[in-house]
Amino acid sequence: MSADGLTSQAKPILVVGSVALDTISTPQRQGVEVLGGSASYVSLVSSVFAPVRLVAVVGEDFSERHHQVLACRGVDLAGLSIEPGKTFHWEGRYDDDLVGRRTICTELNVFETFRPVIPGAFRATPIVFLANIDPDLQASVLDQMESPEWVVLDTMNFWMTGPKRDSLSKLLSRVHAVLINDEEARLLTGLYNLPAAARWVQQRGPEVVVIKRGDCGALARIRDGWFWVPPYLEGGVVDPTGAGDSFAAGFLGSLARWGLDDTGLRRSLLIGAAAASCAIEKFGAEALVEMNLNEILFRARRIRDIGSAPGPDPALDE
Amino acid sequence: MSADGLTSQAKPILVVGSVALDTISTPQRQGVEVLGGSASYVSLVSSVFAPVRLVAVVGEDFSERHHQVLACRGVDLAGLSIEPGKTFHWEGRYDDDLVGRRTICTELNVFETFRPVIPGAFRATPIVFLANIDPDLQASVLDQMESPEWVVLDTMNFWMTGPKRDSLSKLLSRVHAVLINDEEARLLTGLYNLPAAARWVQQRGPEVVVIKRGDCGALARIRDGWFWVPPYLEGGVVDPTGAGDSFAAGFLGSLARWGLDDTGLRRSLLIGAAAASCAIEKFGAEALVEMNLNEILFRARRIRDIGSAPGPDPALDE
Repeated sequence: MSADGLTSQAKPILVVGSVALDTISTPQRQGVEVLGGSASYVSLVSSVFAPVRLVAVVGEDFSERHHQVLACRGVDLAGLSIEPGKTFHWEGRYDDDLVGRRTICTELNVFETFRPVIPGAFRATPIVFLANIDPDLQASVLDQMESPEWVVLDTMNFWMTGPKRDSLSKLLSRVHAVLINDEEARLLTGLYNLPAAARWVQQRGPEVVVIKRGDCGALARIRDGWFWVPPYLEGGVVDPTGAGDSFAAGFLGSLARWGLDDTGLRRSLLIGAAAASCAIEKFGAEALVEMNLNEILFRARRIRDIGSAPGPDPALDE
Repeated sequence: MSADGLTSQAKPILVVGSVALDTISTPQRQGVEVLGGSASYVSLVSSVFAPVRLVAVVGEDFSERHHQVLACRGVDLAGLSIEPGKTFHWEGRYDDDLVGRRTICTELNVFETFRPVIPGAFRATPIVFLANIDPDLQASVLDQMESPEWVVLDTMNFWMTGPKRDSLSKLLSRVHAVLINDEEARLLTGLYNLPAAARWVQQRGPEVVVIKRGDCGALARIRDGWFWVPPYLEGGVVDPTGAGDSFAAGFLGSLARWGLDDTGLRRSLLIGAAAASCAIEKFGAEALVEMNLNEILFRARRIRDIGSAPGPDPALDE
């Protein structure tokens, strides 16, 4: 059987969120005004698996070259609006350990007034990814959709404590899966114990709750079961930017291509971890542009093996 | 097949280290002069699986009741010497999150002059556990043994920076497995990346390097492969004291009972994680005294399932 395995057609994915021009500094290198933003990162990686439709906003400084990076991966840009002004800009600097990072500046620019309008041709898209933006805008995206089959929500600490907390809570009941990290899970739920936090989130709606644990992988609550996604252990780190987005994108892409049952969900989490491990081995979006299906599947198999214990086992199984 | 599965006889385990009378405070409870010390904790848990021989020292205040706790589990106490003075005493207090903890006092007492002497009848014990004590004393234990089949080393940050660092380094070449946590692995190796740290340690001798990751489980380098041990996710925490010792003890016990091949090593790590999850659900050594083989095996199967992804999988496997 080929790497494409299952013969079903991949379902299209709608990605709504930020496209940015970032300035990133690591101890080794600086990239100025490089393609950034979670919606572009997710689109680049998900497009390895399935057709991707992007809804976002950029300014007049978003060059033809930047458009081409997305277009070359077959991303449908009919929902990418160009507004007067400058593109969202983020500037950050990583510490020597490539773990800690400081934000130097955030300029919202055209993103400040972004109100996502889903083109008519995109409204029946079956898989929807709500990248991290204001939860009220995320809700407005769902209001425009025609009963999507599977909605994945990304969010962050910023929306968990301020006036948007209620909006985020309401949104949980409208999505199928949530991706957050450990710190966000504790902030959202007020629970230190992460399995308890995952159950807390699940009780508010999502069938699947994924809590990312950095270099430990991720804890996933999948319907009535648990799954630990081990990390990929053979790779290096050049630039951690985009790791979380690539995880989400691999997860989404695999779901869109190979299905949403429990097996599909576990497989998709392995593929998410594999995509994240590829993303951090190059600077900025460089690895994402070159992301290769066979390499991701190779790493996903390795990650699966890292978590697999022998079974049936005469000592453990009766 | 019964829970005892494989029919081979369990091999005896020699445990050398500290026996203490501890005073532990958690936000809920205080225990005064309760049985503590890593050698007693390990002996209690390993004895569920295999015959255990203990070499340690206690003072005149170590009561008949304390002896009985160990003797009731069948621990061979021929190597437990009683010296004039008081037993090693540690006092600690846990924070509200049951993660952080402060040492209030450490009184070495009779432990200060402990020089382990292995009784003649114990010198051919095939499995040896060197609990966390001065690496020079750990080496002196090995000097007295008749070519043990498998030696497991526990150690801590204290020995990694001071004058004992060289002794610890030399000791690595004489053991088969090392158990440390993430912070200790970084301190010992100077490497932030933990897979790299595990390889660094392995290059110095041990076939197996286990790096414990708290509520994320553990990363293990096993010969030329990797294994991620997921955490048990259904349990609570009453008192984390003894988690690491119970992990080591379950690991050892399973190895002694069911063998040392790669399958046996992965199984033994699952059993270690299962034993640790039992240990923290009660106060002090209470859970260890009641540790039950069927409960440990039940949890080990659950932990195995948490890490298991579907395979063969038509999407991942050709």
